[in-house]
Amino acid sequence: MELMGYEMNTSDRLNATFAALADPTRRAILARLSLGEASVSELAEPFNMSQPAISKHLKVLERAGLISRGRDAQRRPRRLEPRPLADATQWLERYRRIWEGNYRRLDALLDELKTKGPKTGGGR
Amino acid sequence: MELMGYEMNTSDRLNATFAALADPTRRAILARLSLGEASVSELAEPFNMSQPAISKHLKVLERAGLISRGRDAQRRPRRLEPRPLADATQWLERYRRIWEGNYRRLDALLDELKTKGPKTGGGR
Repeated sequence: MELMGYEMNTSDRLNATFAALADPTRRAILARLSLGEASVSELAEPFNMSQPAISKHLKVLERAGLISRGRDAQRRPRRLEPRPLADATQWLERYRRIWEGNYRRLDALLDELKTKGPKTGGGR
Repeated sequence: MELMGYEMNTSDRLNATFAALADPTRRAILARLSLGEASVSELAEPFNMSQPAISKHLKVLERAGLISRGRDAQRRPRRLEPRPLADATQWLERYRRIWEGNYRRLDALLDELKTKGPKTGGGR
């Protein structure tokens, strides 16, 4: 697929990050790892899922660069790598002015309704 | 699939939002719509893609609540709906302290190296 216009960089990293985040188990694993590193069996524990199923999710997170493996050869603990989350947030930040603009417009409208009262309107 | 522990809410909306964002064409469409509403053919123009292919992407964005259709019955212009982007950002914000913490630790280390010089170390 060839992209033209708008945004030329294909940003495979963003694709991988957002795809990895599009699953509640993977988001929960990241939430757990935000508290500190954990082995695969520790990560599997709170889920009603087999260890291979968890491993599959870990592989997706690893490919996206969202987690890495610690040095302990026995436990091979997984660790959160926050950089791709920072990049994803940076991408989303570009839209902040839009949603904040929307809220501001709504606030202004509510203020106007409060101060001027219903007499403002003037026809439908 | 049943989830237990960590994070109980299945947050289908976050799933849909992140899945929708995991594609460069869809991100480019959102970038275009951040400048103002546009018809399907206007959106298709800068891409080397058929209109049905673009329509498929628009359907994904629409299902995720990221775009809506304007009132003009002829053009049916698409419009950006920023709310899901705000929600996704809010989810990511929880990790900000981690990546900012990492940068702070790195800054502190660099400061220490600069002020104390190499003599600090003391054995490997």
